Amino acid sequence: MTDLVTFGESMLRLSPQDRERLESVRELDVRVAGAESNVAVAAARLGLEVTWLSKLPDSPLGRRATRSLDSHGVETAVVWDDDHRMGTYYIEFGGQPRGTDVIYDRENAAVTTATPAELRTDAVEAADIFHTTGITPALSGTLRETTADLLARARSAGTTTSFDLNYRSKLWSPAEARETLEELLADVDILVVAERDAREVLDRSGDAEGIARDLDASFDFEVTLVTRGERGSLALADGTVHEQPVFAADDYDPVGTGDAFVGGFLATYHGSGDVARAMEYGAATASLKRTMPGDLAVVTPAEVEEVIERGDQSGISR
Amino acid sequence: MTDLVTFGESMLRLSPQDRERLESVRELDVRVAGAESNVAVAAARLGLEVTWLSKLPDSPLGRRATRSLDSHGVETAVVWDDDHRMGTYYIEFGGQPRGTDVIYDRENAAVTTATPAELRTDAVEAADIFHTTGITPALSGTLRETTADLLARARSAGTTTSFDLNYRSKLWSPAEARETLEELLADVDILVVAERDAREVLDRSGDAEGIARDLDASFDFEVTLVTRGERGSLALADGTVHEQPVFAADDYDPVGTGDAFVGGFLATYHGSGDVARAMEYGAATASLKRTMPGDLAVVTPAEVEEVIERGDQSGISR
Amino acid sequence: MTDLVTFGESMLRLSPQDRERLESVRELDVRVAGAESNVAVAAARLGLEVTWLSKLPDSPLGRRATRSLDSHGVETAVVWDDDHRMGTYYIEFGGQPRGTDVIYDRENAAVTTATPAELRTDAVEAADIFHTTGITPALSGTLRETTADLLARARSAGTTTSFDLNYRSKLWSPAEARETLEELLADVDILVVAERDAREVLDRSGDAEGIARDLDASFDFEVTLVTRGERGSLALADGTVHEQPVFAADDYDPVGTGDAFVGGFLATYHGSGDVARAMEYGAATASLKRTMPGDLAVVTPAEVEEVIERGDQSGISR
Amino acid sequence: MTDLVTFGESMLRLSPQDRERLESVRELDVRVAGAESNVAVAAARLGLEVTWLSKLPDSPLGRRATRSLDSHGVETAVVWDDDHRMGTYYIEFGGQPRGTDVIYDRENAAVTTATPAELRTDAVEAADIFHTTGITPALSGTLRETTADLLARARSAGTTTSFDLNYRSKLWSPAEARETLEELLADVDILVVAERDAREVLDRSGDAEGIARDLDASFDFEVTLVTRGERGSLALADGTVHEQPVFAADDYDPVGTGDAFVGGFLATYHGSGDVARAMEYGAATASLKRTMPGDLAVVTPAEVEEVIERGDQSGISR
Amino acid sequence: MTDLVTFGESMLRLSPQDRERLESVRELDVRVAGAESNVAVAAARLGLEVTWLSKLPDSPLGRRATRSLDSHGVETAVVWDDDHRMGTYYIEFGGQPRGTDVIYDRENAAVTTATPAELRTDAVEAADIFHTTGITPALSGTLRETTADLLARARSAGTTTSFDLNYRSKLWSPAEARETLEELLADVDILVVAERDAREVLDRSGDAEGIARDLDASFDFEVTLVTRGERGSLALADGTVHEQPVFAADDYDPVGTGDAFVGGFLATYHGSGDVARAMEYGAATASLKRTMPGDLAVVTPAEVEEVIERGDQSGISR
Amino acid sequence: MTDLVTFGESMLRLSPQDRERLESVRELDVRVAGAESNVAVAAARLGLEVTWLSKLPDSPLGRRATRSLDSHGVETAVVWDDDHRMGTYYIEFGGQPRGTDVIYDRENAAVTTATPAELRTDAVEAADIFHTTGITPALSGTLRETTADLLARARSAGTTTSFDLNYRSKLWSPAEARETLEELLADVDILVVAERDAREVLDRSGDAEGIARDLDASFDFEVTLVTRGERGSLALADGTVHEQPVFAADDYDPVGTGDAFVGGFLATYHGSGDVARAMEYGAATASLKRTMPGDLAVVTPAEVEEVIERGDQSGISR
Repeated sequence: MTDLVTFGESMLRLSPQDRERLESVRELDVRVAGAESNVAVAAARLGLEVTWLSKLPDSPLGRRATRSLDSHGVETAVVWDDDHRMGTYYIEFGGQPRGTDVIYDRENAAVTTATPAELRTDAVEAADIFHTTGITPALSGTLRETTADLLARARSAGTTTSFDLNYRSKLWSPAEARETLEELLADVDILVVAERDAREVLDRSGDAEGIARDLDASFDFEVTLVTRGERGSLALADGTVHEQPVFAADDYDPVGTGDAFVGGFLATYHGSGDVARAMEYGAATASLKRTMPGDLAVVTPAEVEEVIERGDQSGISR
Repeated sequence: MTDLVTFGESMLRLSPQDRERLESVRELDVRVAGAESNVAVAAARLGLEVTWLSKLPDSPLGRRATRSLDSHGVETAVVWDDDHRMGTYYIEFGGQPRGTDVIYDRENAAVTTATPAELRTDAVEAADIFHTTGITPALSGTLRETTADLLARARSAGTTTSFDLNYRSKLWSPAEARETLEELLADVDILVVAERDAREVLDRSGDAEGIARDLDASFDFEVTLVTRGERGSLALADGTVHEQPVFAADDYDPVGTGDAFVGGFLATYHGSGDVARAMEYGAATASLKRTMPGDLAVVTPAEVEEVIERGDQSGISR
Repeated sequence: MTDLVTFGESMLRLSPQDRERLESVRELDVRVAGAESNVAVAAARLGLEVTWLSKLPDSPLGRRATRSLDSHGVETAVVWDDDHRMGTYYIEFGGQPRGTDVIYDRENAAVTTATPAELRTDAVEAADIFHTTGITPALSGTLRETTADLLARARSAGTTTSFDLNYRSKLWSPAEARETLEELLADVDILVVAERDAREVLDRSGDAEGIARDLDASFDFEVTLVTRGERGSLALADGTVHEQPVFAADDYDPVGTGDAFVGGFLATYHGSGDVARAMEYGAATASLKRTMPGDLAVVTPAEVEEVIERGDQSGISR
Repeated sequence: MTDLVTFGESMLRLSPQDRERLESVRELDVRVAGAESNVAVAAARLGLEVTWLSKLPDSPLGRRATRSLDSHGVETAVVWDDDHRMGTYYIEFGGQPRGTDVIYDRENAAVTTATPAELRTDAVEAADIFHTTGITPALSGTLRETTADLLARARSAGTTTSFDLNYRSKLWSPAEARETLEELLADVDILVVAERDAREVLDRSGDAEGIARDLDASFDFEVTLVTRGERGSLALADGTVHEQPVFAADDYDPVGTGDAFVGGFLATYHGSGDVARAMEYGAATASLKRTMPGDLAVVTPAEVEEVIERGDQSGISR
Repeated sequence: MTDLVTFGESMLRLSPQDRERLESVRELDVRVAGAESNVAVAAARLGLEVTWLSKLPDSPLGRRATRSLDSHGVETAVVWDDDHRMGTYYIEFGGQPRGTDVIYDRENAAVTTATPAELRTDAVEAADIFHTTGITPALSGTLRETTADLLARARSAGTTTSFDLNYRSKLWSPAEARETLEELLADVDILVVAERDAREVLDRSGDAEGIARDLDASFDFEVTLVTRGERGSLALADGTVHEQPVFAADDYDPVGTGDAFVGGFLATYHGSGDVARAMEYGAATASLKRTMPGDLAVVTPAEVEEVIERGDQSGISR
Repeated sequence: MTDLVTFGESMLRLSPQDRERLESVRELDVRVAGAESNVAVAAARLGLEVTWLSKLPDSPLGRRATRSLDSHGVETAVVWDDDHRMGTYYIEFGGQPRGTDVIYDRENAAVTTATPAELRTDAVEAADIFHTTGITPALSGTLRETTADLLARARSAGTTTSFDLNYRSKLWSPAEARETLEELLADVDILVVAERDAREVLDRSGDAEGIARDLDASFDFEVTLVTRGERGSLALADGTVHEQPVFAADDYDPVGTGDAFVGGFLATYHGSGDVARAMEYGAATASLKRTMPGDLAVVTPAEVEEVIERGDQSGISR
C-alpha cells in the first residue's frame, strides 16, 4: 500500500556555476528536476511511502533520473522507452537585474507519449493520495488524456487527488490552459494554485481568500490552497481559512521551492488531515529547499521541525 | 573572396570527465562540435579564409556555438531561428573494453529546417571550395534537398566541391544512405570516404586502391581519398596513387580526427593542388588533434610542420 | 523473496584526484565502498533482487552510503546507530613505482557492533544466496560472532552461502585469520579465494587447481573459486575444473575488481547454476569495473554481454 | 566602414575562486581584460561594428586574448610581437573589510612598444568613433606618443574621439598624469571622467555639474560625462545636463563596470546622438556587468532594454 | 626563545562546497583546523615566534596538518604516533534556516594520548606565553592531566598562561566541564570566555562586566576577556574595563573567528601589555578571518592595521 | 649549522589541466617551481637541514612561493623586494606529438637583482654543502656576479660546492653559457651535467665516461656526475666510475625529475660520501617524482628505500 503516487516528467537540469553565462559555459552542473518528482522526493524524505510514475528513455540519461530519485527512497515505476528523448532544461542564475533564465528543451521527451495502458495505474488506484500538476497535461495531447484518465481512476478508486496548477507560459497560453485545466479540476480534491495563476489562467479575482472561496464554490475541493510567494500561503478547508507566512531563508536557489511546499504539506496532511500543521510543515520544508542547490528538498523531518520550532517567519533574505 | 565555405550542423558536445559514467554524472564538460565546423576550424587555423553556413536557435546555446567558431577565426554566417532547438550530443569516454558511448540528441535541431533561400548561397558560389559531409543530408528531408542544391550551385559557379561521406548508422541505413549519397556524388569533386563506408554504403570491394579506382571510374572525381583509420590513407588523383601513413600520437580524444585530416588536407590543397603534401599535412593535423580534448584541432601551421619534420609515423599509442 | 543478501561494512572512500598526494590534498573525491556492498551493487545491476544488511551511523554520512546503494537498486536494510562512527578510507593512486596507498580509518565504525538480534536475519533465511567476506569478521569480535551466526542460519534455512576470503593484512595476522576463517568455512557453499591468500592464510600449496581440490577436500564446497589476478581464475565444481582468463581492460581504477567479479558470478550462477558461464560473466563485469572510477561496477547486462561477445582476453593494459 | 575603433592593452586576468587568498591559491580562473577591449566587447555585442587595435606576443597567451575578443564579434587588428611579454594581472576578491586586491604584472608587455607605423591607423581614420583611455598613455613613453598620434589622426580625419580618463595610481602620479592627459584632451570630443579623478588629477572642484561645465569650458567637448560610482552619472552636451542614476544590481564582480557603461553609451550615442538615451543604455549595461564574473559585459540588446523597462534604479546591493 | 607556545589538536576539516549537503557530497574541500593551531597561525603571521605542540599520526594525513601550519611560519613540535588516528570533522554550510552542521570524528585521535613526558615541555617553560583551550581537556582523561601539567609547569617557569574556555557541548556536559575547568583556571593568567559559556558552564550571572569582575574575583586573572559575538568583547585588566566592538565584515566563513581574535590579541599584548590595543587588533584580525574560507586567519599586519584605520565597526553583514 | 644551502629563483608554475591548450585555458593549476628550490625540497624531505636563499617580491605571490617551500621543511631566507616582479612560467602538457610547451615569463624577477650584500652569505659559509645551477647566472648580469661570489665564498669557507649545469637555450646561447660557466666551474666540487650539455655547451666529446674523465681533468671535481636521461647516469669520483640506471616509472609529470635526482643524491652523499648509494637514492627519488604533478618530489625516505628494494630498473613507461 502506497501513501502517495505522483506522475509527471523528470528532466536533466543543466546549469552553469558561479553566475557564469550559458553562452560562455564550459561546465554544466547536472541535477534531476521535475515538479512531480520534486514533490515525491520531499514527501518520501518526510516519511511517506511514495511511488513516482513516468516514462523515460532507456539510456544512461534516463537512468541518471531514476538513480537520483531512488537515492531519496522514492519507488520509481518507469516505462522504459527506446524511441524518444530525455527532457532537459538549462538554467542560468543571474541575480538582479539579470534574473534567472530558463531554456526548456523537453519536446518529444519520452514522457509525452505515456498512456494509461502502459503506466502502473494499479498503483494510482491503491494509493492514498495521487498528485500531479498542470505541467503534465501541457506537454502533449497524449498527456492531457492520460492525466485526465489517471485523475478519474483515482477518484473512482477513492484515492485523494492533489493537483498543483503550475501554469507555465512557455508551454501553453492561458486560454489553452484554462480549457484543459478546468476539466481536470472536476476530479481534484486538493488544489494548489498560485494567486497569480488563479487570476490569469482561471480568471478569478479578489484577494487570496476570495479566490479560494470562489474556486471552492466552483469545484468543491477538499482543500483549496492559494500560494502567494514571499507573502506566504492560505488554505480553505471545510470553510475555515488557514494562513501561513514563509519562514526566513537565504535564497541560494529558489527553484523547486513550491514543490517542496507541496511535498511537506502532503507528508503531514496524509494521516493527520491537519491543514494548519501541514501548511506550516510545507512552509518550513520550502524554506530549507531555498538554501540548497538543485530542485530537490534534501531534508529530514528533524530539520523541518527545528525550523518550525525556531519559528523565524521574517521573510526571504536575498 | 572566401577560400572555403562549409555547411552543416554544430552541436553542444556534453561529456563527463575522468572516465565517469553518464548515468552518474554531476558535471558535464561543454564543447562545440560538428563535422563541417570542425573542418572549418582546422582550415581557418591553418591559413584559409573560411565561412561556415548553418542555422541555429537564437538563444545562448546557439551563441555558445558561434562564439566558439568565431574564436578560431571562422566567419559564421548563421540563420537565427526562433522555433527549433539546439542539437546536442553526449559522449562518454570509457577506454577498453567499455569503449566510447555516444548519445545523439539532435532531432528537430534548427539546422534541419535550413533551406537555400535563407542561407548565404552567394558565399558558396564565390568560394574556391565548398565542403559538406554525408551527415548533413542524413538529418532531414529538407537538408537532403538543401545539400543537393548547394552542391549543384557550387558546381555551376565553378567552386570546387568537397564531400566527406561520413556514414552514421544511428541516422540512416546503408541503403537509404546509398540512394541519397550516390545522387549527391555526381556533383562532387573531392571525395573523402572511409574504406569501410565505401564497402558497406557504396557497395565497393577490393583493397583501398581498388576502391578508389572504382569510385573514380563511376564519378570522375578530381581527388578520391580513402581513409583507413590507423593504417593511414590513400588518394587517387589524375591516375596517381598517394599513400600516407598516420603520425604517431597519444590518443587522448580521437573524436574529430577525421575532420582535422580533411581541414589540414584542404588548407594545403587549396592554392597548391599538391595532393601528396596535402595528405601529409592532413595526417599531421589529425595526429595533433588526437592529443587534445574536444572535436576541434586547435593547432598552428608551425606545429603541423614540426610534426611533419619530426616524421614519426610509427602509429597511434593508446 | 530475495535472490541475494549480503552483509558487511560500507565506508566513505576519500581519494585525491589527478595523482595528487594525500599530504598535499585540497579536494577529496567522495565515493562509497565496501566489499559486500560492491557485490550487492554489481549483482543488482545485473538482474538480481538484492538486499544489503549493515549498521551505519544515523547521520548525513551514513545516509551518503545508503543513498549510493539505493541508487543502484539495492534494498538497504540498515540498523541506524547513534553512538558510533562512519568508517572511511583514504586512497591515493600513484602509478608505478609509487603504487596505491590505502589508509583505513574504520575503527569503531557502527557496523562493528552489529548483532544478529538487530539485523534482518529473516531476510538472510528467505534469500536464495547469502554472501559475505573475510573482511567482516576481521573488524571486531562482535562481527566474528555475527558472521558465524548468519552463515549458520543461512545454512539451516537452505540458503546457499557464498564467502570471499578477502584477507586484509592491515586488519589481522594470517594466523588470527586462519583460526577464525577455517571455522566459518564449515558453513560455506561457494568459496572465492585468491591463490595467494590460500597459500598464506589457509596454508595450502601446489598450483591453483591443486589448491582448489585440496580446499574442496577439506570443506566440501559446492563451488571452489580460485582467483589469480591477471592470470584469470579457476573454479572447481562437481569435480570439474573451469578456467577463465581476464578480459583485456584499461586499468583506470582497479579497486573493487574482485567484488565485481563475484557480483557478476553470482548474478549468473543464481538460477542457472552454470559455473563456466558465471565465471565468464564475472570476468567481463570485472573488466568493465577496471575502466571506471570508484569501487562500484556501474554496468548493464548488455554491456557485460558485449564484452563477452567481443571476447578480447589478451590481458590488462596499464 | 567601422563604427568604433578602440586601442589599448588586453591582459590575462588571473583570479582565485571562492574568496581564496592569492598566497594560498591552487587554481587561477583565467579571463581576458583591458579597459579598451572591454568597451569594444560591450559595444560590439550591442550592435556596433568594432575593431580593436593592439600589440600582443605571438604566443598561445596572446592568442588567448584575441580568441576571447573574436568570440564576442570584435575585429582584432593586432601586431604580433616576438620579443615582449603578455601583460597579466592578479585579482583577489575579498569582500569587506578585505576589499579587492589587484597586482598588476604588465611591465614590458608587447603593447608598450606599439607605434603608429605598425598599427592599423587607416582603421582609426575610417571609423566613426575612436576610443581609448588614460591607462594607455600611462603604460610607456612610446604609448604616450602613440596615443597622441592616434587621437590627432582621428581628429584630422573627422573621426569622433572618445576618451575615458581612467586614472590609475599604480601607474603614475596625479602630476604626471595631468601633464600628459591635459595635452591629449585637446583632441578629445567625448570625455568620460570619474568625479574623483577630475578633482585629483585634473584639479577641478565643485559638484559634478560644476566640474563638467568647467572641463567643457577648458576643452570644448562634444560630451562631458562625469561618473560618480553608485551615485550615477551626469553628462553635459550642448549646454544641457543629463543625469542618470544606477540601476539596482547584485554586485557579483564590479570590475569592468565603467567600461560596460562606456560601451553601452557609445553603442547608443553612435547614430542617434541621443545623450540621455545613451546614458540610460550605458547604466543598464553596467548593471548587468556587475552580475557576472569577468571584466566583460556579456549582454544582448534585449537584456539591456529589459533592464531599462523594468527600471529599478534603487541602487547597488552588496 | 619562543614568544608563544600553543598546545592542542589539529584536525582535517572536510566540507562540501557551494551549499551542497553532506549526504549528497561528491567532493570535500580539505583544510586544517584546531583552536590552538588556529591561534598559533594568526599570532605567527602577525609577528610572534610561535611553536605548536601536539601529537599526530605518522601518516600523510598527519603531515597534511603540519605542512599547513609550517607554511604559515609556525614551528611544529609534534610527537609522531603509529597507533592512533587523525582527527577529522565534517562541516556543512547551510545559510539560514539550515544553519551550519558539524560532525566531529575525533575520537581516538593521536593527540588524545599525549603525555607531558613525550611533549616538548621545555618549550612551554621557555616561552613568554603558553596558550591552550577548554577543548583539549575535553578530549580525553589523559589530556585533562596533560593540560593541567602544562599549565602548572608554565606557571612555575614564569610563562604567562592564556586559556580560551571554548565550551563544546558535543564533548562534555556543563557540569563535567565546570569541574575540570575550574581546577585549571587556578593556573591561568589570561582568560578568554564567551559570555554564554561563563553563564552556562562557570555559573556566573549579570552583564559582561559583572561576569568579568566576578571571575576575576575568583581567580585573580591578569586579563579577563569576555566575548559577546556580534556585540563585541570586553576586557578587565588591573581593574579597568576595555570594550571593543566588532569590525564590519562579510560573513563568508565564520569558523575560527574566535581563534583569530585571540591570535591577534596575543600578538599585540605580547611585548606591549596594551590591552585596549590588543583587543582592537584581535577584533580586526577576526573581521578579516570572516571573509575567507577555512579556519585560519591568513592575514598580514598591514591588512589588520588597515582595518583598524578604516574603522568601520558597524557590524557583521550576512 | 645547516647541511645544505641552495640559491636560485622560484617561480609560479601555471599549467592547464587535462591536456587543455594554453590558448583555450580557463583554469590554471598553480604550483611553485625552481631548480634550486626543487633540490632544497627533495633534500629536506629526505633528512637534511636545508636553507634556500633567494629574493622575492613582497607580495602574496612571493609568499605563495615561500609558503610552499616552508611546508616541506625548507628554511627560507628571502630578501623581500618592493620593486620587481614574481617570475612565472606557463607549461602545457601535450603528449606526443604535441610535446610539452613552456613559456618563461621571468624577466625582471626580483631575484635577478640579488646581490651578496643582501643575501645570507653567512649561511653559505656555515653550510656543509652549497648548491646552485647554471640557470641562476643566466638570469642577469647581477646574478652572474652573485653566483660567482657565493661559490667563491663557499670554497673559501670549506663548504662543498655543488653545481648542476642545467643549460637553458631560452636564456642564453651555448657560447655565452660556456664563457660564464667555465669560470664558475673553477670553484665547483660536485658537478652535475647532462651528457648533451657537456657536448653542446662545454664542447666535450666521447661517451659519458670519456666526458666525465675529460671534465675532471680540466676542473678536478670531487664528483663528476653525467646524466643521460632514460639511460641513467654515471659518476666519476676518485677515479672510480659508478653507473646507475633509472627506476621504472609512469611518466605522469617529468618536470623536476633532474632536481629530484640531485636532491636525493645530496641527501645521501652528505654525511656518507657514498657515491654509489647516493646515485641509487637519487634515481629512486627521481622515479617517484615522475609519478606526481608539479616540480617537487613529495617523497619520504621510506618510499625512496622501498623503490630501491623493489629494484625495477626496466625503464620509463609512457
